[in-house]
Amino acid sequence: MPNKETELIVETKTWRFAEPPHLLQLRCGGSLGPIDVAYETYGELNADKDNAVLICHALTGDAHVAGRHHPDDEKVGWWDIMVGPGKPVDTKRYFVICSNCIGGCKGSTGPASTDPVGGEPYGLNFPMVTVEDMVRVQKEFVKNCLGVDKLLCVIGGSFGGMQVLQWTIDYPEMVYSALPIASTSRLSALAIAFDEVGRQAIYSDPHWKNGDYYRDEPPHRGLAVARMIGHITYLSDRSMHEKFGRGLQDRNKVGYDFGPPDFQVESYLRHQGDSFVQRFDANSYLYMTKAMDYFDLVSDYGTLIKAFESVKSKYLLISFTGDWLFPSYQSREIVRALQANAANASFCEIESEYGHDVFLLENRAIENVIKNFLTNCQNGIREKK
Amino acid sequence: MPNKETELIVETKTWRFAEPPHLLQLRCGGSLGPIDVAYETYGELNADKDNAVLICHALTGDAHVAGRHHPDDEKVGWWDIMVGPGKPVDTKRYFVICSNCIGGCKGSTGPASTDPVGGEPYGLNFPMVTVEDMVRVQKEFVKNCLGVDKLLCVIGGSFGGMQVLQWTIDYPEMVYSALPIASTSRLSALAIAFDEVGRQAIYSDPHWKNGDYYRDEPPHRGLAVARMIGHITYLSDRSMHEKFGRGLQDRNKVGYDFGPPDFQVESYLRHQGDSFVQRFDANSYLYMTKAMDYFDLVSDYGTLIKAFESVKSKYLLISFTGDWLFPSYQSREIVRALQANAANASFCEIESEYGHDVFLLENRAIENVIKNFLTNCQNGIREKK
Repeated sequence: MPNKETELIVETKTWRFAEPPHLLQLRCGGSLGPIDVAYETYGELNADKDNAVLICHALTGDAHVAGRHHPDDEKVGWWDIMVGPGKPVDTKRYFVICSNCIGGCKGSTGPASTDPVGGEPYGLNFPMVTVEDMVRVQKEFVKNCLGVDKLLCVIGGSFGGMQVLQWTIDYPEMVYSALPIASTSRLSALAIAFDEVGRQAIYSDPHWKNGDYYRDEPPHRGLAVARMIGHITYLSDRSMHEKFGRGLQDRNKVGYDFGPPDFQVESYLRHQGDSFVQRFDANSYLYMTKAMDYFDLVSDYGTLIKAFESVKSKYLLISFTGDWLFPSYQSREIVRALQANAANASFCEIESEYGHDVFLLENRAIENVIKNFLTNCQNGIREKK
Repeated sequence: MPNKETELIVETKTWRFAEPPHLLQLRCGGSLGPIDVAYETYGELNADKDNAVLICHALTGDAHVAGRHHPDDEKVGWWDIMVGPGKPVDTKRYFVICSNCIGGCKGSTGPASTDPVGGEPYGLNFPMVTVEDMVRVQKEFVKNCLGVDKLLCVIGGSFGGMQVLQWTIDYPEMVYSALPIASTSRLSALAIAFDEVGRQAIYSDPHWKNGDYYRDEPPHRGLAVARMIGHITYLSDRSMHEKFGRGLQDRNKVGYDFGPPDFQVESYLRHQGDSFVQRFDANSYLYMTKAMDYFDLVSDYGTLIKAFESVKSKYLLISFTGDWLFPSYQSREIVRALQANAANASFCEIESEYGHDVFLLENRAIENVIKNFLTNCQNGIREKK
């Protein structure tokens, strides 16, 4: 039973900006507007306006980071283990903000939104949006909608960690501290390869129709395959062994056929694929994976050291030993480049063989590290005053 | 230019057996016949008939292991670096045999073959064939077609290594020595997961039509996606970094679109997918991956130690440090179980970060190990006499 005392009931709100003709200019050369930003906030902004924590979601996340929308909702937000009253990101202490990235499909403007030119869904007419653009939109939103000029901390895992890094580079004065988790300054060829195969699965679905499917049946089969591929990369050999091993699914012996799944791991993947297509748009999957592939601080700034030349934030990077998609060495590269700039950067490699997605699970080590970092940052910001 | 002296010109031949009503009984409970076995041989069987080396191919391989079919063929057999005159598997010393597995699509009976009942291609009416069945067919072929009662060595990598292990368990008297490379006694949940997603990609292709597509357009898109997934698992983070990194494909900057590939690794994968569908049948891909998933010496025999209770062969297992699909620990498990049976088993873990497929590439360490093992085995078999 939910504890009524500590239960968070939240609402997703929307803020609109970049109304024509004041479109947002994008990195790709195109422009976008109007832009809706779906967001949630938790806790209260204090009088000094120095307790705001922005959480950046991962590839397929949304603004609903914690709590429930209705008391009888079965599901809580995607990082409810971490965010809430008394939790590591304590909503009694911090004013917590999370917004859906543009290009997504959870309330912020994306390819499924209506193109003001023509009045139909954008589809592939939606411009390519990059991490830089997404962060720019978050900045406008935080400043102009919420009136927050400085964030105590920007936190995010995986694709969210890329946004954290971009925040500290583009808006150094606005970010007191930064917590990129299981992140990277640029995807490896291996990670791009998995993204590309996922996209190919979507392109191959005849229902995709070059992205123009919003009046008809959506490309669910292709998107489900893409999700299954992604899901494998979020786990690990060890975690899949512990979770499933070679356990059979509702049967005593293999079926020697191509019907129901023989193995539990097959059933799990099919379920992951089928449930994902109920909540996510295939075109958004294409746009978000492209934004992830395109993110490259090295090529943008010449070197990683140059990328961090003007940063001012205090950093804590967290990585996981069992993460083979965004391996620890990629976080270490960032820490070295930060330290070469004499930035205040620490690094915490957590022993966990679970895989990339471990930050979304209950894990005392991660919780403690995040809680302590935030407390120290809050003390630091107060001492400064 | 090919060296005429050492050039192997070979021919794929076919042997037929299990003519109705003498069908082969299969593990799944079904039966199969007639069975065509496509095979190639290289070198000569000596008078003592003790120089025969059987090579078992991997998932998508065929009988054409070395040399050319015609002097002007551009492509050589799939393991030409290893097999030929003066090569580690020296066709001047050994009588080398390779046959296409049943269930495949390179000349041996498989789902694209004509079902004698009805006269149409089998499609999914083809019975499920297991590694045990494939090896049984190889045994019948080697004995009855080639007149070989004892193999000096059975060699195979990956799925071929599973066949090698099964040979030593089912026909211990026929296998003097065994060389399973990058193999396992059973797939991990991770490897099953990748196989399943590949199959899902094929099932999702509307051209697949439950396997009944031989009169129409085949499910090339689905099969291409399956191959791309597979291909990633045959490489490694390191090898993909070295091969492609984040290099762009025929362009100076990313395209910000969903058109031609931005990155070289994307182009490479698309090419791998497109060329694979020209040479492989989607249904065979389904059957072969299922055979791989079903292979499980632990569940078949209770424990791995029991599986090897009656083996008589001399073993050398080879694994690679950078192979994350069939990791070294899986070869070590086999070696421990063999040693618990006091079997003659050695283990060689080769330092290579390339990934699972490294045994198909030029690699002096692998070549030397295989060459020396074969030489020692041949000396051993002669001393015994």
